[in-house]
Amino acid sequence: MNAHPMAERRFRSKSDTDAAGAKIYALAAEIYPICRSITGDGVRQTLDILKRQIPLETVEVPTGTQLFDWTAPQEWSIREAWIKNDQGIKVVDFAVHNLHIVNYSMPAHRFMEFEELAGHIHTLPEQPDLIPYRTIYYAENWGFCMRHQDFEQLKPGTYEVFIDAERFPGSLTYGEYVIKGTTDREFLLSAHLCHPSLANDNCSGMALLTYLARQMTAGAPPRHTYRFIFAPGTIGSLAWLSRNESRLDQIDHGLVVSCMGDGGGPTYKRSRNGKAFIDRAMAIALRDLAPEATILDFSPYGYDERQYCSPGFNLPVGLFQRSLFGTFPEYHTSADNLDFIRPKHLALSWEIIRYVIDIVENDWTPLNLSPKGEPQLGRRGLYGAMGGDKRTAEQAMALLWVLNLSDGKHSLLDMAERSGTSFQDIADASRRLKGAGLLVDARALAPLDA
Amino acid sequence: MNAHPMAERRFRSKSDTDAAGAKIYALAAEIYPICRSITGDGVRQTLDILKRQIPLETVEVPTGTQLFDWTAPQEWSIREAWIKNDQGIKVVDFAVHNLHIVNYSMPAHRFMEFEELAGHIHTLPEQPDLIPYRTIYYAENWGFCMRHQDFEQLKPGTYEVFIDAERFPGSLTYGEYVIKGTTDREFLLSAHLCHPSLANDNCSGMALLTYLARQMTAGAPPRHTYRFIFAPGTIGSLAWLSRNESRLDQIDHGLVVSCMGDGGGPTYKRSRNGKAFIDRAMAIALRDLAPEATILDFSPYGYDERQYCSPGFNLPVGLFQRSLFGTFPEYHTSADNLDFIRPKHLALSWEIIRYVIDIVENDWTPLNLSPKGEPQLGRRGLYGAMGGDKRTAEQAMALLWVLNLSDGKHSLLDMAERSGTSFQDIADASRRLKGAGLLVDARALAPLDA
Amino acid sequence: MNAHPMAERRFRSKSDTDAAGAKIYALAAEIYPICRSITGDGVRQTLDILKRQIPLETVEVPTGTQLFDWTAPQEWSIREAWIKNDQGIKVVDFAVHNLHIVNYSMPAHRFMEFEELAGHIHTLPEQPDLIPYRTIYYAENWGFCMRHQDFEQLKPGTYEVFIDAERFPGSLTYGEYVIKGTTDREFLLSAHLCHPSLANDNCSGMALLTYLARQMTAGAPPRHTYRFIFAPGTIGSLAWLSRNESRLDQIDHGLVVSCMGDGGGPTYKRSRNGKAFIDRAMAIALRDLAPEATILDFSPYGYDERQYCSPGFNLPVGLFQRSLFGTFPEYHTSADNLDFIRPKHLALSWEIIRYVIDIVENDWTPLNLSPKGEPQLGRRGLYGAMGGDKRTAEQAMALLWVLNLSDGKHSLLDMAERSGTSFQDIADASRRLKGAGLLVDARALAPLDA
Repeated sequence: MNAHPMAERRFRSKSDTDAAGAKIYALAAEIYPICRSITGDGVRQTLDILKRQIPLETVEVPTGTQLFDWTAPQEWSIREAWIKNDQGIKVVDFAVHNLHIVNYSMPAHRFMEFEELAGHIHTLPEQPDLIPYRTIYYAENWGFCMRHQDFEQLKPGTYEVFIDAERFPGSLTYGEYVIKGTTDREFLLSAHLCHPSLANDNCSGMALLTYLARQMTAGAPPRHTYRFIFAPGTIGSLAWLSRNESRLDQIDHGLVVSCMGDGGGPTYKRSRNGKAFIDRAMAIALRDLAPEATILDFSPYGYDERQYCSPGFNLPVGLFQRSLFGTFPEYHTSADNLDFIRPKHLALSWEIIRYVIDIVENDWTPLNLSPKGEPQLGRRGLYGAMGGDKRTAEQAMALLWVLNLSDGKHSLLDMAERSGTSFQDIADASRRLKGAGLLVDARALAPLDA
Repeated sequence: MNAHPMAERRFRSKSDTDAAGAKIYALAAEIYPICRSITGDGVRQTLDILKRQIPLETVEVPTGTQLFDWTAPQEWSIREAWIKNDQGIKVVDFAVHNLHIVNYSMPAHRFMEFEELAGHIHTLPEQPDLIPYRTIYYAENWGFCMRHQDFEQLKPGTYEVFIDAERFPGSLTYGEYVIKGTTDREFLLSAHLCHPSLANDNCSGMALLTYLARQMTAGAPPRHTYRFIFAPGTIGSLAWLSRNESRLDQIDHGLVVSCMGDGGGPTYKRSRNGKAFIDRAMAIALRDLAPEATILDFSPYGYDERQYCSPGFNLPVGLFQRSLFGTFPEYHTSADNLDFIRPKHLALSWEIIRYVIDIVENDWTPLNLSPKGEPQLGRRGLYGAMGGDKRTAEQAMALLWVLNLSDGKHSLLDMAERSGTSFQDIADASRRLKGAGLLVDARALAPLDA
Repeated sequence: MNAHPMAERRFRSKSDTDAAGAKIYALAAEIYPICRSITGDGVRQTLDILKRQIPLETVEVPTGTQLFDWTAPQEWSIREAWIKNDQGIKVVDFAVHNLHIVNYSMPAHRFMEFEELAGHIHTLPEQPDLIPYRTIYYAENWGFCMRHQDFEQLKPGTYEVFIDAERFPGSLTYGEYVIKGTTDREFLLSAHLCHPSLANDNCSGMALLTYLARQMTAGAPPRHTYRFIFAPGTIGSLAWLSRNESRLDQIDHGLVVSCMGDGGGPTYKRSRNGKAFIDRAMAIALRDLAPEATILDFSPYGYDERQYCSPGFNLPVGLFQRSLFGTFPEYHTSADNLDFIRPKHLALSWEIIRYVIDIVENDWTPLNLSPKGEPQLGRRGLYGAMGGDKRTAEQAMALLWVLNLSDGKHSLLDMAERSGTSFQDIADASRRLKGAGLLVDARALAPLDA
């Protein structure tokens, strides 16, 4: 019991939801151990695992390629990294945890006194039992991360630092997968894949999108074309944008997803536009499924929505998370591990995205063919039996709302917004009323309501 | 003391208000005992009583007449209805209370065991001392309503059921009364008359509108034409609409009124438009007279505003009530009787509607003839004496507001909204300033501000 | 310590602010003792003191000149005024406090019994130790004001009243000072100068504007032309308006200032327009410097914004005060003295006005030259060092906001509003980004954003 805080309002069956949570979790667990970075084999290994689920394309962008104001960085590989004390004992070892090395560190092999070494070591004095996550993409330096409690045990003396890493010309790698819809209007779903062993902050997003893509691939072709991007943060989305600039005007909706597995939030940050269809659809999805959610206005700090929403593109792309980045204590530490994410939380995140896709796919604008007064629902068998329960009353209200607002100026999403009735009830009512011959499509010539 | 919660803010004299409350109550009491339904002699008897106050027209719509998606129903008459137990004692008797019969029941004369009989009996287990009100318009069946505490006394055994009722081709009846104004722009006021012995939920509305109509008839012709409709719920308003479709574009304002006599609310539900003049005028009337009021957005469930506001008509008609339907425990029970409604509550409801009519009648758009700086009010005797009290200060503020906003773009209603000053004070100030030659009518060629 | 409640958010140096507070206070103290009225030598003496700071022009408007609906009043002079009891002892004496005489009183020399005299005496029974401030501009009468506790000591008997005053044809006097900017678009700053010995309610405003004008004169020419008006309330602003009607369309922004020295508020009352640039700029200035401030909608009662915002002019002029007029117990009494105003409060008022001027002067609309994705700030040295503090993070966010919103449709003020970032941080970030070649002026041909 209590497996799902919103159990009463679920629109997916419990078995579907449980299956989704379990499978997304298993996939996240499979990619968690890999040491990813913005480039390198960790990225390719991750994409290879995802490829077992969906036939995604791996795109390689050569080092040095101009990506708007940026250039594709060098590849980074790392094999070994440790610090030994003067007794030859390893006091930090990359082999033990990916986070021990500052990500994208330069190679090094030096002996140095503790005082100098300390300048290369990052800890979290206020969370002494956690290893921080640090990167050094744009400087030629190196560093280690460790638990503050371990750091405090280090004694003065000479230490040996060894980092068998390499930065070299190669390529930046990202993954892309497309489900062709019956139209070429697109829904973009994007997750970052540049973080090593952080479960919520990148494994959960990749796993959820992969599961979703596999599931949608198995179904009938959707109305929209769905494009899934798995790319390193910032530079990866810039690479995709630079190679797809001519098709950006096909994107009607988009979500960046991350941190899908913790029990916080949900949190939605609106697109720069703020009133895009995706912003409205997410607001309704959260109202219907997770009214405890927080919706934030756009701000230019976060994940790849920063790039998608830069003024030169201004795409209708929002950010969907459970806990907002930077607000939970496990963020960017070794505590963002496989214990931190839970199948039931992944399941609700998946359900919310499915619901938004339902809105995007099923929104239409009905025209009432019997608009003068209410049509007599009783003789059409559309009213529930006398003394109906709360659910029956809700469904009857949905019928009345759809009839009242089907003046050809309100889409189903408009109706869900104005009525306070769930989108699913509005959609069901519209289907029944259309079936009874009371509604037709007001925009028969314009099937997409972008 | 404490006769009127808003005593300080009243704009009608106490004697006028007291008289209104007493007369409306007396009329409601007179029509309360009649067993109305959607058709039949109960409706005609009610209209005959109202005709003693105002010369309303009774309209008969033959059974079977097409009314948009509906047809005019058969007439219903009932003479006798009871259930006897196996000792021949009447355990329920329509002669005792109109609510004992399910309204519009088919005739019946049968002997049946308790088990079968129970399926035809409606009670309120959570309000065991009240008789519920139930109807069965659109099925060929019958039923009785009784106190749950009485129902629980019934013993197993054989019962005799007798209903001397009839459904037969005849007509649907409604009443209509028009006060011709100096223009043909209309204000529609509509009350339902299909409920038997329910005092708040239909007697109060009919009585209030009748009193109002009689009172307005005695005065000078208003600017608008006022149309009063007394009709059975749903089917009655559809009948009126179907016979008056060509004149609907004359309706500038409308109110459905019901439940005018309890001490709750007041409650106003906006028209479908939501920003119609009537919606704004009701908001100001309630702010000025009953700031404890609740204003709700339109929803397609309620009284005949459902029909007036269906998308094919979309008339500017709101719903005015004291307690909102369905929210008070007496609703649709035998407790909605003459003890439940009170003259003082009817008086405030009347006062609010009068106030809205004042707004509709007296709104205009002034143009300041001395718009550069404030005109010198002192030498025109428009400022109160030095050291004026609170009321004098309010009136002086009203003068300043009218002068400041009389740029030809603000009507008095606009000014009342923006200033927070009562409409009556704004109207009084405008009158004084016009008298002093400081204002003229900015829309002299367009007298109505629809 | 605690010298300034908003110390952390100050954008002026502490020494500048302290100097401003001290100098404004000293000037207010210098003009406090003068017995001003709507006309007469008190006005001229006050302007003469201000002229030692700024070369303002004194304008004389002859008595009887038509000023829209008004005429310029007679001059008033007063030399002596007292009441003696029957022992020849002065019980009230204008020489002791300017407020003892009702301002603009007619001359008088009479003996009268206490009963008649009492009709000419004003007191504050609820504030028995304070002398009220009263005026009698538009009637031919006279009066005295005194402490209620002193009034209660007066005994029956014959009193001698002597008022050596005069109303005579002369002129109405006001002061005007202009700082020419690089454009002729104007910012109007207006203070009233008609109140005798009231420190907050007129000395503080005159002193603050004079200090500001002197300071701005010493700097580089601003973009706007700044016009300072020191005029008697109502009639003085009407005089200025009537003589400057042809140039009113040059006024892009305006503030009436008064009550700048108490510790309340701050309070801003919007212009009649309500969404003028000045209204938005004041809202941001108060948000950034004094978030405890109250912002009120326009109402047509107050100071000279009543005239500037009359419908025939409708200028974008708001009212800036600390405590709102009429809301503090010292208002219009002898307690509005030099102890009531404090340098630190004057300093914050000055700082807020300077900030608004910064917004008006420095607002522009940037266009991002690298709008596709974020430009790489690191290689341009625009990002702070790793591990920056809170201030560094705020400045980095300001950079991101400016880049994101610099689509040619957002001015800096728009950005400050949308981002929640202070205008100064937005302006600083814009300057840095422009310096780095990332921004150009989107409205190069339209430098003013009126």
